[in-house]
Amino acid sequence: MHVMVIGAAGMIGRKLVEKFALEAGALGYDIGKLTLVDVIEPPVPPSLSAIATPLALDLSKDGAAEKLVALRPGVIFHLAAIVSGEAEADFDKGYQVNLDGTRALFEAIRHEGLREPYIPRLIFASSIAVFGQPFPDKIGDTFFTTPLTSYGTQKAICELLLADYSRRDIFDGVGIRLPTICVRPGKPNKAASGFFSNILREPLAGQEAVLPVDEDVRHWFASPRSAVGFFVHAARMDTSLIGPRRNLTMPGLSALVGEEIEALRRVAGEKAVKLIRRKPDPVIRSIVSGWPTDFDARRASELGFKAETNFDEIIRIHIEDELGGQI
Amino acid sequence: MHVMVIGAAGMIGRKLVEKFALEAGALGYDIGKLTLVDVIEPPVPPSLSAIATPLALDLSKDGAAEKLVALRPGVIFHLAAIVSGEAEADFDKGYQVNLDGTRALFEAIRHEGLREPYIPRLIFASSIAVFGQPFPDKIGDTFFTTPLTSYGTQKAICELLLADYSRRDIFDGVGIRLPTICVRPGKPNKAASGFFSNILREPLAGQEAVLPVDEDVRHWFASPRSAVGFFVHAARMDTSLIGPRRNLTMPGLSALVGEEIEALRRVAGEKAVKLIRRKPDPVIRSIVSGWPTDFDARRASELGFKAETNFDEIIRIHIEDELGGQI
Repeated sequence: MHVMVIGAAGMIGRKLVEKFALEAGALGYDIGKLTLVDVIEPPVPPSLSAIATPLALDLSKDGAAEKLVALRPGVIFHLAAIVSGEAEADFDKGYQVNLDGTRALFEAIRHEGLREPYIPRLIFASSIAVFGQPFPDKIGDTFFTTPLTSYGTQKAICELLLADYSRRDIFDGVGIRLPTICVRPGKPNKAASGFFSNILREPLAGQEAVLPVDEDVRHWFASPRSAVGFFVHAARMDTSLIGPRRNLTMPGLSALVGEEIEALRRVAGEKAVKLIRRKPDPVIRSIVSGWPTDFDARRASELGFKAETNFDEIIRIHIEDELGGQI
Repeated sequence: MHVMVIGAAGMIGRKLVEKFALEAGALGYDIGKLTLVDVIEPPVPPSLSAIATPLALDLSKDGAAEKLVALRPGVIFHLAAIVSGEAEADFDKGYQVNLDGTRALFEAIRHEGLREPYIPRLIFASSIAVFGQPFPDKIGDTFFTTPLTSYGTQKAICELLLADYSRRDIFDGVGIRLPTICVRPGKPNKAASGFFSNILREPLAGQEAVLPVDEDVRHWFASPRSAVGFFVHAARMDTSLIGPRRNLTMPGLSALVGEEIEALRRVAGEKAVKLIRRKPDPVIRSIVSGWPTDFDARRASELGFKAETNFDEIIRIHIEDELGGQI
């Protein structure tokens, strides 16, 4: 099977490719060919060098989608996007990449299929940003998408397109609404959501971290390992079980910041917790207060998608996957 | 105020313009200028000839939206669309007109506003086709949009764009999800929904009509007069009351085909009812079974939108507005 990952240089894209490097049969079939695409040339794990081709290409540029689809991959993971903050700051760029780039990909598949029959599996990275407040206590699977950002709007539009193109058998699509990924590896960044990961990752590495909100802030999480699991499962699963409602809120863990900290104390001790410096930031507090806090992701759970059920597990996964198993 | 109606040659567009002809103050302010746009040159009621300019123009063609927006109307009614059946049969045309045409209009407004401040009121005709089965008994205001047609998908996408552009103060948008309009004036057409109107309009005119489904079929209705009322109210209302959820399911009447027939009997007698010929059509029955049957349109009602509450009223409106008050 020829598998294509668009957005292969991003955090989840890289982890997905690493998963293929570690487990040849991760998708339930042999990957005979792997095409890794991103705006910068994505890294290729050495063990995949025989089958993988990296491509530096911007999906939103004229002809780019056609070039990719002409390779006729059987499975396409589409993870490429301008992130939320940038899509909000740059209206044109956000719509161009997140909406027009995705639509160009969908259209290229349609035209390729008109030329010669072709119905790839397509897994699309969506986001809980498709939802906008006010929310019920738990957001159910039939709650409407009323995004309050252009990023969320672009993702919600692509979800609608994905469902329509799948209904017409142009491709076999699954939209994956990701929770906030925690613990996000790497350096602290300026994303408003960064502290959720920072207050675990930095203390685990013996570094200070800033907590800008109170401990009673609730949010919706899954580990990077779960995120990869979602994409792998979506590529393997029997999509005839999904029906026409192709976009699924992934399972996750609803937890308080205080619960994150308690889990850190259990796993890494008081010394780690002492590295969290409280520095209230009303701007971040206000942004975060508009985010979803809890979901009843029943459909995805019934369809076999799995995430963590407590924060100890999320921290242990970070220690295993990023810190070589020890702190 | 300069008012523009795009789709002014369609059934509701014409009735909206007739409303302006009958009631100078319908919108709560003077219409100083009226631009009437459609792919064919729309009719101009004689009493509006001093202020109205008809324009034959296809919104989906390059430069068309810019041409309209350069006139800087303060209120834009956007009713232009390819209908459901055609959008399903012709993928390219449906997306080109219903999605790209609408987006071109929105983008033209954004660019005009960047050139010189400009935030028109924009009222967009959406549809209950944004919903797809299975449904709850009553579809509430927070139920998700999972259209099962390309037409419904295009409308749902435009709703998302409308909300995002309004949130960014590019325009002041209101999306109006219309019920099935009944009694639709004119000749019987081949739309699968046509019989809902045919079985009233034709007998009222002394003609036979075919009923292709059973009397226990339930559906969601409003009169053409209510539809015009929705648009007028959306143009007059205080949009600060709506908040960011800019797309509203309009109130309507949930009724059985049997209730339509009983109302016809009450208003026009047994003679009229006898003109309904039962001719079951399994194809139409199957299409209709996928449509919404009932809504709890609480938000729109609270915001002052009004529709009929029984079928006698719907029939009387048809007699008043289309048959000169007598049958």
